[in-house]
Amino acid sequence: MATAISILAELVGGRIIGATDISISDVAPLQKAGAADITYLEDSKKITKLKTSTAGAVLVAEANIAAAQAATAAVLVVVKDPQAAFVQIMTHFRPLRPRASIGIDHRAVIAASVKIGDGTNIWPGATIADDVVLGKNCDIHPGVVIGPGCRLGDNVTLHPNCVLYHDISLGSRVIIHAGAVIGADGFGYRFVQGEFIRIPHTGTVRIEDDVEIGACTTIDRAMVGATVIGRGTKIDNLVMIAHNCEIGRHNAFASQVGFAGSCRTGDYVRCGGQVGVADHITIGSQAALGGKSGVMGDIPEKATYYGYPAGPDMEQLRLHLAFRKLPDLRDQVKELEKTVKAMQKRLDAEQSPPQRDAA
Amino acid sequence: MATAISILAELVGGRIIGATDISISDVAPLQKAGAADITYLEDSKKITKLKTSTAGAVLVAEANIAAAQAATAAVLVVVKDPQAAFVQIMTHFRPLRPRASIGIDHRAVIAASVKIGDGTNIWPGATIADDVVLGKNCDIHPGVVIGPGCRLGDNVTLHPNCVLYHDISLGSRVIIHAGAVIGADGFGYRFVQGEFIRIPHTGTVRIEDDVEIGACTTIDRAMVGATVIGRGTKIDNLVMIAHNCEIGRHNAFASQVGFAGSCRTGDYVRCGGQVGVADHITIGSQAALGGKSGVMGDIPEKATYYGYPAGPDMEQLRLHLAFRKLPDLRDQVKELEKTVKAMQKRLDAEQSPPQRDAA
Amino acid sequence: MATAISILAELVGGRIIGATDISISDVAPLQKAGAADITYLEDSKKITKLKTSTAGAVLVAEANIAAAQAATAAVLVVVKDPQAAFVQIMTHFRPLRPRASIGIDHRAVIAASVKIGDGTNIWPGATIADDVVLGKNCDIHPGVVIGPGCRLGDNVTLHPNCVLYHDISLGSRVIIHAGAVIGADGFGYRFVQGEFIRIPHTGTVRIEDDVEIGACTTIDRAMVGATVIGRGTKIDNLVMIAHNCEIGRHNAFASQVGFAGSCRTGDYVRCGGQVGVADHITIGSQAALGGKSGVMGDIPEKATYYGYPAGPDMEQLRLHLAFRKLPDLRDQVKELEKTVKAMQKRLDAEQSPPQRDAA
Repeated sequence: MATAISILAELVGGRIIGATDISISDVAPLQKAGAADITYLEDSKKITKLKTSTAGAVLVAEANIAAAQAATAAVLVVVKDPQAAFVQIMTHFRPLRPRASIGIDHRAVIAASVKIGDGTNIWPGATIADDVVLGKNCDIHPGVVIGPGCRLGDNVTLHPNCVLYHDISLGSRVIIHAGAVIGADGFGYRFVQGEFIRIPHTGTVRIEDDVEIGACTTIDRAMVGATVIGRGTKIDNLVMIAHNCEIGRHNAFASQVGFAGSCRTGDYVRCGGQVGVADHITIGSQAALGGKSGVMGDIPEKATYYGYPAGPDMEQLRLHLAFRKLPDLRDQVKELEKTVKAMQKRLDAEQSPPQRDAA
Repeated sequence: MATAISILAELVGGRIIGATDISISDVAPLQKAGAADITYLEDSKKITKLKTSTAGAVLVAEANIAAAQAATAAVLVVVKDPQAAFVQIMTHFRPLRPRASIGIDHRAVIAASVKIGDGTNIWPGATIADDVVLGKNCDIHPGVVIGPGCRLGDNVTLHPNCVLYHDISLGSRVIIHAGAVIGADGFGYRFVQGEFIRIPHTGTVRIEDDVEIGACTTIDRAMVGATVIGRGTKIDNLVMIAHNCEIGRHNAFASQVGFAGSCRTGDYVRCGGQVGVADHITIGSQAALGGKSGVMGDIPEKATYYGYPAGPDMEQLRLHLAFRKLPDLRDQVKELEKTVKAMQKRLDAEQSPPQRDAA
Repeated sequence: MATAISILAELVGGRIIGATDISISDVAPLQKAGAADITYLEDSKKITKLKTSTAGAVLVAEANIAAAQAATAAVLVVVKDPQAAFVQIMTHFRPLRPRASIGIDHRAVIAASVKIGDGTNIWPGATIADDVVLGKNCDIHPGVVIGPGCRLGDNVTLHPNCVLYHDISLGSRVIIHAGAVIGADGFGYRFVQGEFIRIPHTGTVRIEDDVEIGACTTIDRAMVGATVIGRGTKIDNLVMIAHNCEIGRHNAFASQVGFAGSCRTGDYVRCGGQVGVADHITIGSQAALGGKSGVMGDIPEKATYYGYPAGPDMEQLRLHLAFRKLPDLRDQVKELEKTVKAMQKRLDAEQSPPQRDAA
């Protein structure tokens, strides 16, 4: 489905620099784009990659026109936000499947007391228990299980086989991916006479508007009160959020991150993959944690930490540089020891001149 | 549902110190409790937190009365086990949903040969294959799949969408949370002529009484014999237990822990989150592993290990303290080198006095 | 079901050394085998374990006969490949459940446009959406959800409750274990005016022939193009493969490994458990990564790396040995400082003889 560059430019409100009569047939990343593809220049750091790109056309920002022209002979399409324009053209060439409109399938298992908003789809094989309230335009896919007492806002998508235990609340536009489990009992026991006795978890999970939760991620319910995921926060696959955590707004956690119980984060906190956070830790707003960090203490606002145990980035950098030179340091110390021993011998020789016989 | 403190005290067999006529309306943790809440003092270490708590009433042990009185003006309720009393009052204010009594739903898919004990609930959407035996008072939730030949004890709870492969055995009072997978084939292959050839896994998984297994945790079946989870052991979410592991009794593994194949643990072993254990490792009874440890060798009884690679705690502490001062050490060595060089010059100067011309 | 050793030897094409009239009733690992069990000697490194084994019979390779005879009085069965012979005898004593032949159950939910190859089983509770094509002899277990537009080859096994999102393609002989999720949207957002805006993921996942994917593993779809898992690659449980990764052929990843977006691996790459790989990393063919490694840069072909951050094995070994002696090094440096200070005093004393009064 080749499209004239002029039509694409119009689609994204862009200005063409170069040939206006070429045809584009797909989008592609900078490095994979060919003569019939359009790509985009995210920022000026990518200029070197642009030089070797064989893309037919490139979306660029006003500020990068000169640099782009120096780097490539491709047609430029000048736009405000090249990434946004790229996404728009991507869905022109690769249209998303439209949202289905199946209504409520009779093969779903839905308790009589469930309230369902207009425009909501419920697939066969979904199970919805008593006293659940679903908002408008939700999508409840096959195999989803919603426990009694749950409350969902509008435009919520629950992908196949995800599970909400009882009394969970989700805001609007929440997306939960396949296999995720929300509201299992927290991992809390009393240790009595050599046995672990389960502590009942009477709390819940509250997931605010615009949160997205990845496949097979698990978020446990609170003992008292609620485990909270703040508005706009995005959580990747296979993440663990333990009981009573209170995650702030617009956080982003990559996959396999784990938070132990009762942690709190501010807003705009970012975690790389496989980060682990011990229980009762507080992480300040806009803090960033490098991948695989092991966090054992509170983290101040806006700080960047990494390592195991995690520390401030500049300190960690200094430590790691020193660490990499540790074998050299050992050699230096050995050398010094030799030198000092030799000096000591000279000193001793000097200060104790050959003794004459006492005879 | 405010309740007189005297009624609560009676409920937990406690003695009131202070006003006996106040009313309490909920439980709350020490730090979040307000004037109408009751909280508890876990142990004397929490006294400082009690000082700033605004709780209306506090459950305390006999031993901590004096300290508590010095720290707070709140009404005290003296009990043997404050945490147990707190849990009891918690479920007074926040009653748990009663166990359902739905019997066997006709929309479940149950093979004709399945035997089912009295009082067992089987929800719509559960699937139970041939030759399965279920004990009494089990709860088999929607989307659960039980493979052929499985044996379940009494009072077993299988939460939604968890899966038992064929021929798995579960003791009584076992709880398996949503999305967990028990008995998938172990990750074992023969490498023949450049290809991995699957080794059939003819063994099983045996889960003993009172075990609890978290959401999306996976426990693989043995090649021969059984992967075993010992009585009373509690496993959190997203944990991996590989084929042929034999986990002892009353272990507690936090989330995202991974055991490679054929490991053995004694009783009362504890693992923090994200611990990884290499294959064929033995961990002695009562050993404790710090969060994110990477275990590559056997661990003796009662030892506490952490780090990557994991080592005994005191040794690790010493190493980490030294590590944190590594940049200082480098500076010290540089300084020493300078000093020694200067000394050497002085020594050289002394020992080789200015030479006269040989002429 | 005791079997004469002669029959077992014939079964695996082996030659008996020792008593030909004994009876064997089961297989067992070297260390657990008793007098009625047959075991195998994998290679000569296991000879010490053979010495303490009480096995009645042992499968050995030609090359290890003499060593085995010196180590044990057990009957030997000489074969080309002892492990393969062991597996064969294992399934003699412990026959695998035969593949079911249930055809297409009427309680499965199958869209009218789905095409299904001969010999394929579809269990009750499976859901298959529009425009799906299934090959021959596939097994689609209960609770499996296959999204619209998916293409499956022949002999594919989808274990219970695994999920394929829309438009995924699987080759032949692919095995996907329970709870795995293939094709969820990649974790990609644009950050605009303080909010994360989802980037639509128009790409797919392509899983080639003979791939096996573990329980609760998640493989995300690409933004454009495909996330690829190459032919013959084996992936354990709870692994994360992010959007746009291109994994080569015959890779083997142990459980809880995580690859961030757009990584590439060659063929025969191996990862121990809990390895984490940052985004856009390239790993050369035949590279091996030790358990729990944190990979932050490209890895050359055939290299063995481990550690966090990961480095070449010999370098890491050197660093870790130095690290373990770090407290000793500090002591050495302290000692040196003392020595040098003392020497300096001596030097000073020598070079500045006691001054007389200037008077």
